[in-house]
Amino acid sequence: MKLQLAMDMATLDKALGLARLVAEYVDIIELGSPLIKNEGMAAISAIKASYPDKTVCADMKTAHAGELEAELAFGAGADLVTVLGAADDDTIMGAVVSARRHGKGVVADMIAVPDRVARARDVVRMGVEFCEIHAAFDERSRRGYSVQALIEAGRRSEVPFSVSGGVTVNDVRDVQTSGALIAVVGAAIYGAADPRAAARGLRAAIEPPESSWLVEVPAARKGLPHGVPRGAGPGKAADVRVLARGASR
Amino acid sequence: MKLQLAMDMATLDKALGLARLVAEYVDIIELGSPLIKNEGMAAISAIKASYPDKTVCADMKTAHAGELEAELAFGAGADLVTVLGAADDDTIMGAVVSARRHGKGVVADMIAVPDRVARARDVVRMGVEFCEIHAAFDERSRRGYSVQALIEAGRRSEVPFSVSGGVTVNDVRDVQTSGALIAVVGAAIYGAADPRAAARGLRAAIEPPESSWLVEVPAARKGLPHGVPRGAGPGKAADVRVLARGASR
Repeated sequence: MKLQLAMDMATLDKALGLARLVAEYVDIIELGSPLIKNEGMAAISAIKASYPDKTVCADMKTAHAGELEAELAFGAGADLVTVLGAADDDTIMGAVVSARRHGKGVVADMIAVPDRVARARDVVRMGVEFCEIHAAFDERSRRGYSVQALIEAGRRSEVPFSVSGGVTVNDVRDVQTSGALIAVVGAAIYGAADPRAAARGLRAAIEPPESSWLVEVPAARKGLPHGVPRGAGPGKAADVRVLARGASR
Repeated sequence: MKLQLAMDMATLDKALGLARLVAEYVDIIELGSPLIKNEGMAAISAIKASYPDKTVCADMKTAHAGELEAELAFGAGADLVTVLGAADDDTIMGAVVSARRHGKGVVADMIAVPDRVARARDVVRMGVEFCEIHAAFDERSRRGYSVQALIEAGRRSEVPFSVSGGVTVNDVRDVQTSGALIAVVGAAIYGAADPRAAARGLRAAIEPPESSWLVEVPAARKGLPHGVPRGAGPGKAADVRVLARGASR
């Protein structure tokens, strides 16, 4: 399972400062929507230039004009872009068209989707690489909320998925056991007294890739350092191509 | 009824070029999501600096972190920000908190909301100024689509609304008759052979404010050039505060 750092701050300076501390412990660096909206596509280019070997995810949360927005982000250096699972099919498929043009990938952010399981299956059929099972602050502040609800939704969807929404060092292993491709961690890293130690701890809590269901990419795909799923992992059905393409720039 | 220019291009240069041609004919200048994501908040500041007397709408299409994203946009000079009507209640109410702090307004973009009428009533109760009844390209390309469907949804919602989704000079008057606060026009202006003539034509097609249900703001609110609804217009129930505050910076 991969570890994704969600950079939820709004300024590039702060994001670069955080990345400097913790990048070595994460596989995927995500620029949050506020950062993108505040700084523009230049923020993606700056992060990718600093971390060319990391998979860079632009959390565009595209709701319309899928192809245009994906083109902007891929053009700036993103390896993954998010679209809203709640968006119209046309918007999602537009982003997929752009991803295929660039040899990159689209992630469906399932925030605010009422029936995550059904919609996750829909959007994977449209060509997204995986679904981010994502709880908004809203849902997370409700009594009885736990990351388990997201894990369950991901598992039941039977599509490749990541989990985002308050994941900490205490539940990252549960996320992995569920068969998630990726654990997305934000506040548990950047909100920690020592973000570097927090990231190191999360990494240590994740079972090493060699003993999990992820396999390394063949030598023929050199320069693409990320693992690809064997396709037989727990709860997985599809071949998830993008993680092998993540750092292809 | 007011006329809103939707600037759907991705670069500030092109947006400023368009605004230069047509600003005099429109009341509200909207920076589209691709422009915001491409150029960042600096684009809002640049447009507002060039057009301090126009209401500037930042089409943030916020799906999460409502207060943070609204703060960024209002801080940069936006008079209105959009949130997704499909977003969680918490996200919408966060943006409203920010708007109240700044004396500005939140618009709910109803794109990809399955039941527009019911959700429109919900979000207005949460404090949004009005709902943008908005059809995605997806919906617009379906057989039988017309702006009439949006007009109908707006009218049935019985909340203040704008209409966006392929409005042209041929139907802008129908939009006005429906009681819409605002007609949002994009491609029918920027895609025209002569955008200036197109904007002038749209303006001419709209019944003059003095003969409509809009009244001018009292002299006491000088410096706020926009009209406020009398509250008794067709299909209107609420007092729509923001249009009087649009150019308060």
